[in-house]
Amino acid sequence: MASEFDLIARYFNRAAPAGLLGVGDDCALFPVPPGEQVATSTDLLLEGRHFFPDVDPRALGHKALAVNLSDLAAMGARPIGCVLGLALPRLDEAWLAAFAEGFHDLAAVHGCPLIGGDTTRSAHDLAISVTVFGAVAPGQALRRNGARPGDDVWVSGELGAADVAYRLLDGQYPADPALLSATREALEWPRPQVALGLALRGVAHAAIDVSDGLLQDLGHILAASGVGADLHYPQMPVAAALAGLDPARRRRAVLGGGDVYQLCFTAPASRREAVLAAAGEAGARATRIGRIRERAGLDVLDAQGRPLDALPAGFDHFPAA
Amino acid sequence: MASEFDLIARYFNRAAPAGLLGVGDDCALFPVPPGEQVATSTDLLLEGRHFFPDVDPRALGHKALAVNLSDLAAMGARPIGCVLGLALPRLDEAWLAAFAEGFHDLAAVHGCPLIGGDTTRSAHDLAISVTVFGAVAPGQALRRNGARPGDDVWVSGELGAADVAYRLLDGQYPADPALLSATREALEWPRPQVALGLALRGVAHAAIDVSDGLLQDLGHILAASGVGADLHYPQMPVAAALAGLDPARRRRAVLGGGDVYQLCFTAPASRREAVLAAAGEAGARATRIGRIRERAGLDVLDAQGRPLDALPAGFDHFPAA
Repeated sequence: MASEFDLIARYFNRAAPAGLLGVGDDCALFPVPPGEQVATSTDLLLEGRHFFPDVDPRALGHKALAVNLSDLAAMGARPIGCVLGLALPRLDEAWLAAFAEGFHDLAAVHGCPLIGGDTTRSAHDLAISVTVFGAVAPGQALRRNGARPGDDVWVSGELGAADVAYRLLDGQYPADPALLSATREALEWPRPQVALGLALRGVAHAAIDVSDGLLQDLGHILAASGVGADLHYPQMPVAAALAGLDPARRRRAVLGGGDVYQLCFTAPASRREAVLAAAGEAGARATRIGRIRERAGLDVLDAQGRPLDALPAGFDHFPAA
Repeated sequence: MASEFDLIARYFNRAAPAGLLGVGDDCALFPVPPGEQVATSTDLLLEGRHFFPDVDPRALGHKALAVNLSDLAAMGARPIGCVLGLALPRLDEAWLAAFAEGFHDLAAVHGCPLIGGDTTRSAHDLAISVTVFGAVAPGQALRRNGARPGDDVWVSGELGAADVAYRLLDGQYPADPALLSATREALEWPRPQVALGLALRGVAHAAIDVSDGLLQDLGHILAASGVGADLHYPQMPVAAALAGLDPARRRRAVLGGGDVYQLCFTAPASRREAVLAAAGEAGARATRIGRIRERAGLDVLDAQGRPLDALPAGFDHFPAA
């Protein structure tokens, strides 16, 4: 066993940057800038539930880290480093090399080196756990509970492509190679909006990343903040690839589609220029899609200002926060 | 799905202590004392590999956290908090409640509250990932690479009981209810030596926790420090329950048995009183079992000073560090 897992370690043990103690002791060590706090998030990803068994391992390595970096982005935290747990049903060197490459490449882009981990064998499924650490000054973190009536609701990037790619790959939609080709990158290579999250500190009142679907995730902000919202469906930044899609499927993808890893955030109307400047600085697109209201609940309005009915399931399952 | 996992969350969302932002935002937040670094360790535990499917869930919750606290102990870090990932093949409220109780009880003992997590369904096996965070001043951390020739080698607690319990439960040894009863607590309720690790800062030169077996784990210290060691088998603190065991099985349990979660550490001979004082302060037993030497390798000597042969497999699988 030891030799097998020495082999695994070969793909993951890179020299830790100065100041960080990496893989190879009981714990990894990292410093935190004076006056800042640590932000941390963890995800446990399982084959057959969070990814298809035949997914490109390089994309999987990328995405395993991306979904956690997206949580740091939603807090406005600057990445410090990460740890990885990997349970493998079998040893496949080519697979491991590709997974490690996808993981390390994204880590390098965001200055979030792998500093520790745990590799083991699993009986059945591949399991991946990633925990990320970032730094943010107290009071600067973008929380879920800061939305106020009158705030604009914004979303970064585009919506809907990942949901369509998932349903095509899952066989829920009939095969459509052109549509899959136009949407697959959104599902498999999400780009965590770390720079945008940092630029929104002091501008946004509340933020979350869209992982379970726009309505469900915005719902977490509404519940935590004790407010409601009106959204304007015609203003949503729909992925261009969805132009020819059946309108009901498009709506489900835009409002309910998960795996987006864009930021949904609120900011006072007086800060619209600041939001656009932050987005410009981060190289991101930001679209104003609605407004926070006092009254609880969430309505999505059509071009005539009428509430849409039959919203995607799940949007009203607000947790008690 | 949402309601199911709201239910799960009920067992894990406890109010975070002041200064820590707990479960319920994109990230958890925690402060780090000025001048200290963060120590972190992660483990991924799988049903059928790291624990038996029918293990007492309260013991499993305890142990999932204990193995990570043991890594903090081996660094001399003070626990701050932890995050938990849990993938469940089915929803069993009684099981969840017991698991959460075992986890939270140990967290309370060590001031290591659960501040974040991720729960999901798995297709087959139960999977548990835990990441712990602690604080330690730079230069005070107990590393693996500090052992020097002439250092004493010490181990805390007792050795061997967990290995025997494991082999009894696994059917490798014939059923022996009295022996199982006397050894099972060591396997299922390990006590991480956090207080001892803290007390050994400034005293020990190097430390590791015994998770894979004494010889294998001491081997990591030797490899990282570029030294060797002579151990004295008759000095080993063997669990009393092993007194009647076949000598070969006892030796394998003492030298090669994993799941011990005691500390193996080295300290200069001039600090023997300080080591014993640290152990006394921590309420722990510390036993001197050998000495670090310049020449690489590891010998275990019998009462006549002759090297034992046929040491437990794995002890020479030193990683490249």
